[in-house]
Amino acid sequence: MGIMPVAVYSDPDAGTPHVLMAEQAVALPGSTAEETYLSISKLVQAARDCGVDAIHPGYGFLSENPEFARACRDAHITFIGPTPESMAALGDKLHSKDIALAAGVPVVPSTPACLPGDPVAVEFADRWGFPLMVKAAAGGGGRGMRQVNRQADLGGDMETASREAQAAFGDGRMFLERYVANPRHVEIQVLADGSGHTIHLGERECSIQRRHQKIIEETPSPALTPELRRRMGDAAIAVAREAGYVNAGTVEFLLDPRSGEFYFLEMNARLQVEHPVTEAVVGLDMVEWQIRIAGGEPLTLQQEDIQPRGHAIECRIYAEDPYRDFVPSTGTLLRWRPPSGPGLRLDSGVSEGQEVSIYYDSMLAKLVAWSPERDLALRRMEAALSQFLVLGVVTNIPLLRAVVGHAQFQQGEYDTGFLEWNPAVTSPFISGDSRMMARALAAWASRQPVGQASQQAGSDRPVSANPWQSAGQRRLP
Amino acid sequence: MGIMPVAVYSDPDAGTPHVLMAEQAVALPGSTAEETYLSISKLVQAARDCGVDAIHPGYGFLSENPEFARACRDAHITFIGPTPESMAALGDKLHSKDIALAAGVPVVPSTPACLPGDPVAVEFADRWGFPLMVKAAAGGGGRGMRQVNRQADLGGDMETASREAQAAFGDGRMFLERYVANPRHVEIQVLADGSGHTIHLGERECSIQRRHQKIIEETPSPALTPELRRRMGDAAIAVAREAGYVNAGTVEFLLDPRSGEFYFLEMNARLQVEHPVTEAVVGLDMVEWQIRIAGGEPLTLQQEDIQPRGHAIECRIYAEDPYRDFVPSTGTLLRWRPPSGPGLRLDSGVSEGQEVSIYYDSMLAKLVAWSPERDLALRRMEAALSQFLVLGVVTNIPLLRAVVGHAQFQQGEYDTGFLEWNPAVTSPFISGDSRMMARALAAWASRQPVGQASQQAGSDRPVSANPWQSAGQRRLP
Repeated sequence: MGIMPVAVYSDPDAGTPHVLMAEQAVALPGSTAEETYLSISKLVQAARDCGVDAIHPGYGFLSENPEFARACRDAHITFIGPTPESMAALGDKLHSKDIALAAGVPVVPSTPACLPGDPVAVEFADRWGFPLMVKAAAGGGGRGMRQVNRQADLGGDMETASREAQAAFGDGRMFLERYVANPRHVEIQVLADGSGHTIHLGERECSIQRRHQKIIEETPSPALTPELRRRMGDAAIAVAREAGYVNAGTVEFLLDPRSGEFYFLEMNARLQVEHPVTEAVVGLDMVEWQIRIAGGEPLTLQQEDIQPRGHAIECRIYAEDPYRDFVPSTGTLLRWRPPSGPGLRLDSGVSEGQEVSIYYDSMLAKLVAWSPERDLALRRMEAALSQFLVLGVVTNIPLLRAVVGHAQFQQGEYDTGFLEWNPAVTSPFISGDSRMMARALAAWASRQPVGQASQQAGSDRPVSANPWQSAGQRRLP
Repeated sequence: MGIMPVAVYSDPDAGTPHVLMAEQAVALPGSTAEETYLSISKLVQAARDCGVDAIHPGYGFLSENPEFARACRDAHITFIGPTPESMAALGDKLHSKDIALAAGVPVVPSTPACLPGDPVAVEFADRWGFPLMVKAAAGGGGRGMRQVNRQADLGGDMETASREAQAAFGDGRMFLERYVANPRHVEIQVLADGSGHTIHLGERECSIQRRHQKIIEETPSPALTPELRRRMGDAAIAVAREAGYVNAGTVEFLLDPRSGEFYFLEMNARLQVEHPVTEAVVGLDMVEWQIRIAGGEPLTLQQEDIQPRGHAIECRIYAEDPYRDFVPSTGTLLRWRPPSGPGLRLDSGVSEGQEVSIYYDSMLAKLVAWSPERDLALRRMEAALSQFLVLGVVTNIPLLRAVVGHAQFQQGEYDTGFLEWNPAVTSPFISGDSRMMARALAAWASRQPVGQASQQAGSDRPVSANPWQSAGQRRLP
């Protein structure tokens, strides 16, 4: 867009791709997030020093922090996102439910904000029964969240979750929510301009989660009919309008795939990690629109201009061990050779030789596969994951492959409990015999083509002793 | 698509990505193209040994060779492409012109096939004047092709070109063609199924060429109006129908952008190198359709289903020195770090550590950038090229950057003579002062962020001594 970007970076991030790619980069001395990317004063000072016009907050860190948006406004710097006021209203999980109700959108029954020990919690449990959910009023990203399965655990679980919420958000208030059995997580992407013109860009299915965090997202959702898509889209627009929302945002719903009932969960007042799947099917650049809208331009797109095409799926590549309770993995990226080719997109923040530190989120990259049909998009993703070579840290790629290759997933029949209900997916040997795998790895390590068969001119010896032929679509990590 | 691919490879190509990615790979002993990828007998034998159902000939090598298609048919192996008969008819440049004329599509005036010394050449030159083009009747890829500027050169140039054609194609016959001044090369992608249903997928503008070979392609063409696009699309379909064409093919035209007149050049009976730009805007997988059609499936798409979206541009990354007459460069790929991110596609046949040999074409990869608008696609390509790190061989990336960044190219005002008329583009220092470039390179080499400014907490020292700020959008190779 002809905009000169200025990057900021902490000490461990010096030399990372975003710093090398930016026209200009400013150091934020320190290593922890608190010292650097969460420091409103340092960020605003850096922006002032560089004379920037606007700040894109990305996702994570301060992207949904109304104080930061307010500090930008006070410094006469455009914050690329909604107003601090609507951000604050939506950031409070309970207030955001009131907004949804006012917009005529159903929400999951819940209590008001309360602290552990409040009688309102016990009354709620008596009325709706167990299991139920305990959530942080200021929460997000699964922190301060618990499923409570029986009366006896309620007090203790609320205490633990409240302490977690206090540590993570500086706010220990909780609320109880009815448990929706086997729900799917489906969200609607919304775009709104400063004059209230609001459209939606369709849905994203985000039900594959580990520890309440998404790891695989796709669009369209295998669970939605055109009629349900229209109803959920209308509901999302109604919520955004009620919140006076400007810029890109996402309205998250719990969907009961059996009844087709859906419930407002929350509205995320920022770009989502999984926005590339939407971009792939609607053919728009969402960050471009974020910047245009923040610059005061009208949203020239009408709802009928949004014509999704094909199917897109995203896998989040984490430096973590999927077979050891997803413990983050650190170290030097000795090899980082992502796949490329038709229908593939890679958004990555790392490069070969870089240190993966303990300081920030362990996501290394997002791999997106697009194809005209869902089954081909899934095959493309499977092949791409099988070619993704990472050495030096443990990654979740084997888990992602197991999910994408799983029959139930391929049939589109899954919900947020998928990983829990398929323990085989999170155990190290998902298929086949390990001797053959070891042999194949050895062959690969010696850089010989796998399944190689030397063809002699004039020889009619058939190519037969190839283990891969019988093993089918199995590939090396 | 659930198809198990079998790769073939020559000795120098053992260990290349296509071999490691395939489920099975068969060695074709030898190094030269003649011993390996051009050996019909070895290829058919390998296919028989593996029991393959079909062969995709790719592009280059035997992809347009009717003998190979015939050998496949004789071996009861499906050739993924047109029939040998229509391939042979279209492969003869003069016969293909007759097909176009029979379809009512204009061609550039030319002579019948003749050998050097034939009086028909002199008569033609007398009638149409100079400059004129000498071309090989069996030719392609710029070989056996000459522009003749004056009567005195005609005999000698025909002799030279005929010898070149004899060596390259085993056929020294030539023809003379009227020279169209400052033409654009615009081609139309066609898809046809076995029952004659034929549609087109829009155009590709391929006017940026070096030595008569395309290096940058884009779609839509900046030169086409909707009316001209419709007329050229209709003409391409008429040619394909007249040729009894089945599968994917491309009808190439010379376009006079001033008059809007266009002339049939030739029809390529195979997948084009530049097909990804079409895929990016029409949202189809062309190879998937090639395979479906070869499998006897009907083409279920109608012309009105083809709704191009956004703009795509492709740059061909060659191992060659653009400042030394495009001499191919060989060596070890010490570093191969292609860019990735939103709107980018990379089709590559190489990996880090690999040898780039003398044996085959020097193309390393194709980089495609898509965006909703042309100017943003160009910026995305500029940024991606600037981040493309290749060490060990010389590449044409600096030339590609100079073209994509050129004002005339950005305005869409260019033709096949672009490189010739802009000698600055093919000289090593295209802009800026080399001292600054050297300083920046040194900074980069020491892995320090370029334009780094250490910000002290509490300090209000402005970030000022940044050469990049004044230099604008200049980046490191």
